[in-house]
Amino acid sequence: MKQLLDRIRAEGRNLGNGILKVDGFVNHQVDTKLMQACGLELAKRFANCGASKVLTAEISGIAPAVMTALELGLEVVYARKQKPITMPDQVLLTIAPSHTKGRNVELIVSPEYLGAGERVLVIDDFLASGQTILGLARLVKAAGGAVVGVGALIEKTFEGGRDVLSGLGVPIETLVRITNMDAGRIELGS
Amino acid sequence: MKQLLDRIRAEGRNLGNGILKVDGFVNHQVDTKLMQACGLELAKRFANCGASKVLTAEISGIAPAVMTALELGLEVVYARKQKPITMPDQVLLTIAPSHTKGRNVELIVSPEYLGAGERVLVIDDFLASGQTILGLARLVKAAGGAVVGVGALIEKTFEGGRDVLSGLGVPIETLVRITNMDAGRIELGS
Repeated sequence: MKQLLDRIRAEGRNLGNGILKVDGFVNHQVDTKLMQACGLELAKRFANCGASKVLTAEISGIAPAVMTALELGLEVVYARKQKPITMPDQVLLTIAPSHTKGRNVELIVSPEYLGAGERVLVIDDFLASGQTILGLARLVKAAGGAVVGVGALIEKTFEGGRDVLSGLGVPIETLVRITNMDAGRIELGS
Repeated sequence: MKQLLDRIRAEGRNLGNGILKVDGFVNHQVDTKLMQACGLELAKRFANCGASKVLTAEISGIAPAVMTALELGLEVVYARKQKPITMPDQVLLTIAPSHTKGRNVELIVSPEYLGAGERVLVIDDFLASGQTILGLARLVKAAGGAVVGVGALIEKTFEGGRDVLSGLGVPIETLVRITNMDAGRIELGS
């Protein structure tokens, strides 16, 4: 998607170790018009997947998931990383390793909002190793639902997430692909 | 605002200790159409405040802030509660007590995205004790900017946040006011 690609080209920074800084428009400051455009594009690509709900992981997945879900007329559930006191004692919880955080994170969803028969579109900001999204897919399966699609704003193809998620057997759509971040580069694919 | 009021009346739950559970439409599952309507209403009320940026606190402030900012044509900055590795070493940080978390939380903003001269509209999901919003206002002041308005979806009037924030001298707008949660009640004001 050209708008997002141009923005990454202009402002994205390679911080080393495969970390792409997009804090100025995706995950600390949000460019709301750009995010709306990204949501529109993801919604278009998943218009026919029959999703009944959008699932993401807090924190930086929320903005793209909300914008996509708004266009699809769906609700968003965001997996929590810490159980809030408003959540029931019995929850769906899985553990996913986070490369950017350098540790495992918990992904927690209340069974009140993710049930059997749910057809779930998973949306996140990044598709990198695929471990967060795979964790979200485990939660959907544990709830008795089915993942029907996976979408992300930015894919780091060299981290292999697409292969990790291939077992889900669902369409995977990403708006920008980064193919190489070696030695300070940010190489953008199409 | 009638839509939000009706939803709280139908689904809000009083968990005791002043905790209102609105997980089904505000802060675990997001009703995106309702959130859009709330954003529109807040944007309308702050249309003439001259804001140059919207500031909120992760996590549950993100959806209402993004929807409000989208309507105002502004960017959103969300204060982080943990410093991500993409943030520079020198940050703006303040400490705010959280009633619902029962502990102090850090609010961290990168000076890259909150600068001198910025006119900031602060948006959050709840106005309760006002401590989180007051913390955000301290960050704005530390950056050399000015708060020009404070908006929240739900105000718990009995926690006194409006008085706490009166020193800011800016308009405070909330879409639903809850006046009493004693003994299991959820009394809604106008």
